[in-house]
Amino acid sequence: MSDAFAQVEFLGFDVFGTVVDWRSGVARAAQPFLARHGIAADPFAFADAWRALYQPAMEAVRTGNRPWVRLDVLNRENLDAVLARHGIAPGTLPEAELAELNRAWERLDPWPDAAAGLARLKRRFAIAPVSNGHIAGMLRLARFGGLPWDAILGAEIAHNYKPRPEVYLASLEAAGVAPRQAAMVAAHNADLAAARALGLRTVFVRRPHEHGPHQATDLAPAQDWDAAAGSLVDLADRLGCP
Amino acid sequence: MSDAFAQVEFLGFDVFGTVVDWRSGVARAAQPFLARHGIAADPFAFADAWRALYQPAMEAVRTGNRPWVRLDVLNRENLDAVLARHGIAPGTLPEAELAELNRAWERLDPWPDAAAGLARLKRRFAIAPVSNGHIAGMLRLARFGGLPWDAILGAEIAHNYKPRPEVYLASLEAAGVAPRQAAMVAAHNADLAAARALGLRTVFVRRPHEHGPHQATDLAPAQDWDAAAGSLVDLADRLGCP
Repeated sequence: MSDAFAQVEFLGFDVFGTVVDWRSGVARAAQPFLARHGIAADPFAFADAWRALYQPAMEAVRTGNRPWVRLDVLNRENLDAVLARHGIAPGTLPEAELAELNRAWERLDPWPDAAAGLARLKRRFAIAPVSNGHIAGMLRLARFGGLPWDAILGAEIAHNYKPRPEVYLASLEAAGVAPRQAAMVAAHNADLAAARALGLRTVFVRRPHEHGPHQATDLAPAQDWDAAAGSLVDLADRLGCP
Repeated sequence: MSDAFAQVEFLGFDVFGTVVDWRSGVARAAQPFLARHGIAADPFAFADAWRALYQPAMEAVRTGNRPWVRLDVLNRENLDAVLARHGIAPGTLPEAELAELNRAWERLDPWPDAAAGLARLKRRFAIAPVSNGHIAGMLRLARFGGLPWDAILGAEIAHNYKPRPEVYLASLEAAGVAPRQAAMVAAHNADLAAARALGLRTVFVRRPHEHGPHQATDLAPAQDWDAAAGSLVDLADRLGCP
């Protein structure tokens, strides 16, 4: 494994699912909100339904059908859409409460290994999110969870969304590294496939409960990625970061 | 002082001169280079001459006479110009050596108080460079000197150079804060004047030897900035960051 990483100086990380547990965090924030407004929905199902609108919303930007817009804006629109399915018409709940619930995406617990693993990986590699999240959201997540990023890169740098190549390439350009000097770390095979196609090294991190106890996708590496790990601490071990 | 900072969540930092000692670092890198090539120049004077071309080079971008270009590119061009004054025609020295010398700007020692002061300020405020440096350069400076930024903002986010308002405003937008929630920290009065005009709070840090023992500019606050400090540790004391 070490040969593949000999030239690597920079690790770019997917964040939602790979570094932080969005499902538990969103459900935790949704539970009192749903109870307060008498919305009959399981908080985890509500989190899943909200997240299910994430890819289609980004797709409008990826295809050029919609100008660049940050993820917090998409999440807020998607919240309205999920509430509408529960019979809540837009504008009928206080905007301040909706804005607050939307900020749940900035207060997600890291997976238990994430902060410690990143601190170790940072000793050898420059580390940064290459996420679809916006910079302010990534900054607040990092402060909430103690994630010691060197910089925050990703979608907002490129004004597009992964897996569009622009996002990886603009992030590497900003970090001052060539693709062969960079690795993408993600719990999602599609993210790694896009990165590999551009010449980055690839690291799969198993997160078998990102989508809850019955997760059916991304349970295992779909290709022979350059590394695979069970956690970021395990990855630090594998990459020789004491 | 505390009232002025009651709403502040984000501190943006000038870096060259305020956080790191560019003059000593550039002179340190220039000394063996000058000796090797028989260039009769004092390393500190060489650093000063190189730095003197920094503002005019950025001015071409600020005025729109030149499209956006990163600071490492401007520094490299300015190096050629300084060498030309010493009779070295462009192309006569090995490009690898010139590129290496240009990277001196990414290996500058922080002022002795900087890393410790930032670590304390970070406990209360989100902290990021709002510098004219490029992201990769700021990232490498941070790793070289142990500067614990939450994110890297500034000129490359805005595709323009301070003191143009776009640089402050794009950085605040990326950080997710309004001007009243932000303070600019700088050793340069002009930087603070530009920030204050946009509604940011302002902090002057005295760096009386940035330009060497005979510095004549920016020795004292030129306005009643919201705070003034002798170091970043002193600033942490004044802002109640234990």
